[in-house]
Formats: sequence, structure tokens, C-alpha cells
Amino acid sequence: MSEDERKIRDLIDTWLKASKAGDVETVLNLMADDVVFLVPGKKPFGKAEFAQGSRALKGADIESRSEIEELQVVGDVAFCRSHLTVTMTPPGEKRIRRSGYVMTLFRKEPDGRWVLARDANLLVPENGP
Amino acid sequence: MSEDERKIRDLIDTWLKASKAGDVETVLNLMADDVVFLVPGKKPFGKAEFAQGSRALKGADIESRSEIEELQVVGDVAFCRSHLTVTMTPPGEKRIRRSGYVMTLFRKEPDGRWVLARDANLLVPENGP
Repeated sequence: MSEDERKIRDLIDTWLKASKAGDVETVLNLMADDVVFLVPGKKPFGKAEFAQGSRALKGADIESRSEIEELQVVGDVAFCRSHLTVTMTPPGEKRIRRSGYVMTLFRKEPDGRWVLARDANLLVPENGP
Repeated sequence: MSEDERKIRDLIDTWLKASKAGDVETVLNLMADDVVFLVPGKKPFGKAEFAQGSRALKGADIESRSEIEELQVVGDVAFCRSHLTVTMTPPGEKRIRRSGYVMTLFRKEPDGRWVLARDANLLVPENGP
């Protein structure tokens, strides 16, 4: 495994652990300032909207499992295809479980740090839409 | 616009025109043999399943409009984010209109030809899921 590939896998691990811990600041630091998130049925959104959504989930129990199916590094960009399962329990509410595939583009910043730059998230509720 | 960017834009144009014309062979020639398509709620699928699905739509009137929002070429790969609207009328059936975003990875083959390699399609029916 190349040094870049290892760094990207570490980034994904850190992202999932920070999400579970409700550590929004750490997650925000793992993405590019011009990040674009795509999810079905919504307009593309960026870092500010991601932060707002994450803060609205404060107190929720979030458990995520990512299986990387493919990771290709090409110079200063990398492409990843993974299967993600997210189990979320907002305080006092029923557990929601969503799963599906994610296609992600990472970018190496001039300082050598990798960040998430583009993300297409195809997750659907496990018991039908 | 670089030569590579022009070639990729031409590929997308050819793809949409061939889809409209029901020319499945031309579309298949525009994708890599190891292509992977991601759509919400399904397992990833490849060229054979794409071909089967396209042939099942024989006789349908398909009209697609793609607006490229971002196209980045990095060496022999390229990343594209676009908004796609597909209007499809199977023979004797009601018109279906779907729209949404698509994240696509293109690859330059050793012979210099660009092909579609990975595609995450987030289209949803326009009148709700």
C-alpha cells in the first residue's frame, strides 16, 4: 500500500470515529473548503451546510461502517468507491439505518495533507425508500 | 478548453445522442470494459447489465439533457459533475421524467481514447421518489 493510500484510509477512519464522537470540527477539517456533497433529491451542498446538518444531529448516536471496494490514487487526486452503512439514533427517537454506495474524490493539498473534495452519497433506508 | 476536455465533452454528447437513437452499441463503446455504475438502492453493475437494461428499453423514446457543472482533467483520468434530466416514454406507456446529479470518472485508454469508467447516478423521479 502506498503512503498516499494509507493516508486516505486513515482519513476515512478518522472521519467515521469523529462522526461517532460528535466531533464536527475534526470532520470539517478533513474536507476541502470547496467540498461538494451530492445526495439524491437535493441540490449539491458544501461545508457550511454540512456543518449545520451535523450540528443539528448533536446528541444522536451515530455508528458508521465503511467498506472500501476500490481506491485509486492518480497524482494529487484519488478516487474511492465504498459501501457505507450508517445507523443513527436521535435522542428519544427510533433507530434509522441507511446503507448504500459512496463515490468520493480526495485531493492532496499543497501541504501534502489529503482532504475529501467531492462526495456522491447513494444511501437509502434499508427498509425501502 | 484543452484537447482532452473537448474529447470528454464530445463523448458525453455522443452518448446522449446514441441513447436517443437507441444505438446501444455506440454507447457500449464509450465505456471501459471494467466500468462500474452506481445507482441508489442497487448493487453496482457493469457493462453486461447496462447492455441488458438498454436493450430492454428498445423502442422507448429517450430524451436526455446534461449540464456539465464541473470537469477536471488530471493526467489520464477526469472527473465530471453534471446535472442530468432524462425523459423516457416506453411504447404505449406514460412519460417518466427523472433528474438529478451524476458524478463520473473518465479514463484515457493507452490508445488516447477517453472512456467512461465509473458513474454514480443520483437521479430521482421529478414528482417525488
